[in-house]
Amino acid sequence: MITPKTLSGFKDRLPKEAMAKGAVLDKLASVFRSFGFVPIETPHLEYASILTQEEGEIQKEIYLFKDHGKREVGLRFDQTIPLARFIAQHHHALGLPFKRYAIGNVFRGERAQRGRYREFTQCDFDFIGSKSLLCDSEIIQVIIASLKALGLDEFSVWINHRKILNGLCEHFGLHTQEEIHALLRVVDKLSKIGQEGVLLELKALFPQLQFTDLLKIINTKQNGDPLEFFKSVAYLKDYNPTLKEGLEELESLFNLLLCLEINPEHFKVDFSIARGLGYYTGIVYETTINSLATLGSVCSGGRYDNLSKSFSTQSLPGVGASIGLDRLLVGLEELELVESKSTSARVLVVCMHPSHFAYASQVAQKFRQSDVNAELYPEVEKLKKPFSYANQKGHEFVVVLGEEEVRNKSLTLKNMTTGVQVNHLSFLGALAMVNE
Amino acid sequence: MITPKTLSGFKDRLPKEAMAKGAVLDKLASVFRSFGFVPIETPHLEYASILTQEEGEIQKEIYLFKDHGKREVGLRFDQTIPLARFIAQHHHALGLPFKRYAIGNVFRGERAQRGRYREFTQCDFDFIGSKSLLCDSEIIQVIIASLKALGLDEFSVWINHRKILNGLCEHFGLHTQEEIHALLRVVDKLSKIGQEGVLLELKALFPQLQFTDLLKIINTKQNGDPLEFFKSVAYLKDYNPTLKEGLEELESLFNLLLCLEINPEHFKVDFSIARGLGYYTGIVYETTINSLATLGSVCSGGRYDNLSKSFSTQSLPGVGASIGLDRLLVGLEELELVESKSTSARVLVVCMHPSHFAYASQVAQKFRQSDVNAELYPEVEKLKKPFSYANQKGHEFVVVLGEEEVRNKSLTLKNMTTGVQVNHLSFLGALAMVNE
Repeated sequence: MITPKTLSGFKDRLPKEAMAKGAVLDKLASVFRSFGFVPIETPHLEYASILTQEEGEIQKEIYLFKDHGKREVGLRFDQTIPLARFIAQHHHALGLPFKRYAIGNVFRGERAQRGRYREFTQCDFDFIGSKSLLCDSEIIQVIIASLKALGLDEFSVWINHRKILNGLCEHFGLHTQEEIHALLRVVDKLSKIGQEGVLLELKALFPQLQFTDLLKIINTKQNGDPLEFFKSVAYLKDYNPTLKEGLEELESLFNLLLCLEINPEHFKVDFSIARGLGYYTGIVYETTINSLATLGSVCSGGRYDNLSKSFSTQSLPGVGASIGLDRLLVGLEELELVESKSTSARVLVVCMHPSHFAYASQVAQKFRQSDVNAELYPEVEKLKKPFSYANQKGHEFVVVLGEEEVRNKSLTLKNMTTGVQVNHLSFLGALAMVNE
Repeated sequence: MITPKTLSGFKDRLPKEAMAKGAVLDKLASVFRSFGFVPIETPHLEYASILTQEEGEIQKEIYLFKDHGKREVGLRFDQTIPLARFIAQHHHALGLPFKRYAIGNVFRGERAQRGRYREFTQCDFDFIGSKSLLCDSEIIQVIIASLKALGLDEFSVWINHRKILNGLCEHFGLHTQEEIHALLRVVDKLSKIGQEGVLLELKALFPQLQFTDLLKIINTKQNGDPLEFFKSVAYLKDYNPTLKEGLEELESLFNLLLCLEINPEHFKVDFSIARGLGYYTGIVYETTINSLATLGSVCSGGRYDNLSKSFSTQSLPGVGASIGLDRLLVGLEELELVESKSTSARVLVVCMHPSHFAYASQVAQKFRQSDVNAELYPEVEKLKKPFSYANQKGHEFVVVLGEEEVRNKSLTLKNMTTGVQVNHLSFLGALAMVNE
């Protein structure tokens, strides 16, 4: 005997969870499509050389191995590097601009911890091949429309611009990209180690500099009217041209969003958002659900200058975001915004003798032909058992077929919610009750 | 620079293909659900010991490696072993009978050849925990309903019973399971090496036996009325009890199916169907599309006695089938039954000056609010470019917004199919044209 178990950090989804996930993915895909994003698929396995081109912590977590032909291969750890490879390989066939979404699993051999898995699902959407602010605006619209489609109402996309962070660093005495990255890496820990902790770490890194004022600005979050907010920070434009450019672009983005029918509570400025290091170059954002502060960001992203720089000399700017589906599902569950059934059928058809199988099959087929998902209980047993099966799985109705029903071509229907049972209905009578 | 390429035997799906695949999967899932099948998810990675429990050619093709914790792991090569593991692990929580579908990718490092990939998609549906013939009947109904939902009309599920094959072997002098398997392995090559080839191979294996009559019977395919067919082979029931049992069960299955509103051309007896070796124990089937003889079976399966025998002492009989999606898609494409667009948007909104971006965003949002998928062209360029973009991708309508349109809050709409362009429409006028 082999012990049936999953690998540590990997998990099965039972029907209730799998159906809830499927319903969420359907809604997300439908929002992505409404904006003209199209799906693509890339393999789960790629050449190791493609996956290992960047530096950072994540490199140690890639599942790398040799395939049957002794090639060094690896499981994808995100969908961005495969996208960069894909675009470089196919951009002539695709045509630019190109808007794709991709819903797929990625693999990271990180230390397993609560709520973190080694295989998890990402929903990415990117707008490639254009520097237009319309694209940034659209990605943020997609985030907001997605969360609203899932029934969320109280959430915010926190937006910043890398040029604002770069300009601030410059103003406070950090000039090289390395220095700026070192600072951002510390600032990224703000929510974990607090302002005191950040100041201590920065002091250790740059003993000659003062960070209190810098941190005060970085800690600025918009609270209230956006136009007022931009007025209140307009003085920063005088610090240097980089800061000015970043602030003006952010303001233009807000002006684009504010002219739409979107609740302005859903997008706000937060000067502390940095989002990783070498990657993003423009507007960046994270998304939090108001009532679930500890959940972290459920959708993050930003603008980058050149997606495929490792693969192609052609410059491919773009902007995109990624929804961490597993984390989002945890949030939706906590807010009771996910389906919680274990069956896809509304009706369970039960018969009391094997000689009724043919009639039962006909009844189930008729329900399906009338667009009512119907399941046939395959065994003949005491009624208690199929009824408890229906209760456990969540069927709304149970149809019972006995000798009399078979003779009259009638059926007995029980509403499992109200407990009401009606005997000897015609099929159309039963259908009416189900569709009531 | 890194050369952007996929591994040999792996492939990308561009939007047109990915959308076609997605549409097919949506239709299949909807059929599975209409019968009460529910989705589950298992990881792509499993303990190697779980994957390598069986013998056979496939074992050499499994991607096996060590993970970060030095565990021996592997990529799943089918969805049946993971299902067996899943059921043994969770059956108390699931409740029996249990009907699941699973749509997922599997990995086999086989020699790459035309139309065969090392990563491919399987759509499995299984009915676990019941020996009732209703389950067999339902799996065959699902196959037929699935292919019909995809627009196929001329196809057949070819059905056999392992007990018929076993009984025939017994009658013609083969008695051990090893001998029967050796014969079936040769018979499985019938379509490849022909009757002559099969007879030669059998002669070499069993020089003392005569196979001409056996092969004649095995080559019997139902052609015409099923009840007539069963009458014509009724003499086989006298050969031995195994044959009798197999034939009677097959006949009962046909009687169940014949009482339903299903074209009887869609299911037929074929005594040559064997489907692998140690696995199946009852009714077995393959499915072919009439006009695509060389494509092979697009959906195969059958009944098994005990799914989880390696994992559990509890007996879990079941019946199921698997659709080879990649092969099915090849067939659907050949019959022009797949979508062939590269865009998910019906309308492309184009503006002629950056100062029109806000109005263009509003127009696109209005279309979406009216359930019309609308894409915004992000650049301001000569109109030729967005129009050729719309032509390439397949948008049905292009909306052009110039100075006058912005001033009047009107829009100019071109129907890309008819070429008809109407200027200065109100939004509702444009919406009416789109929904016409």
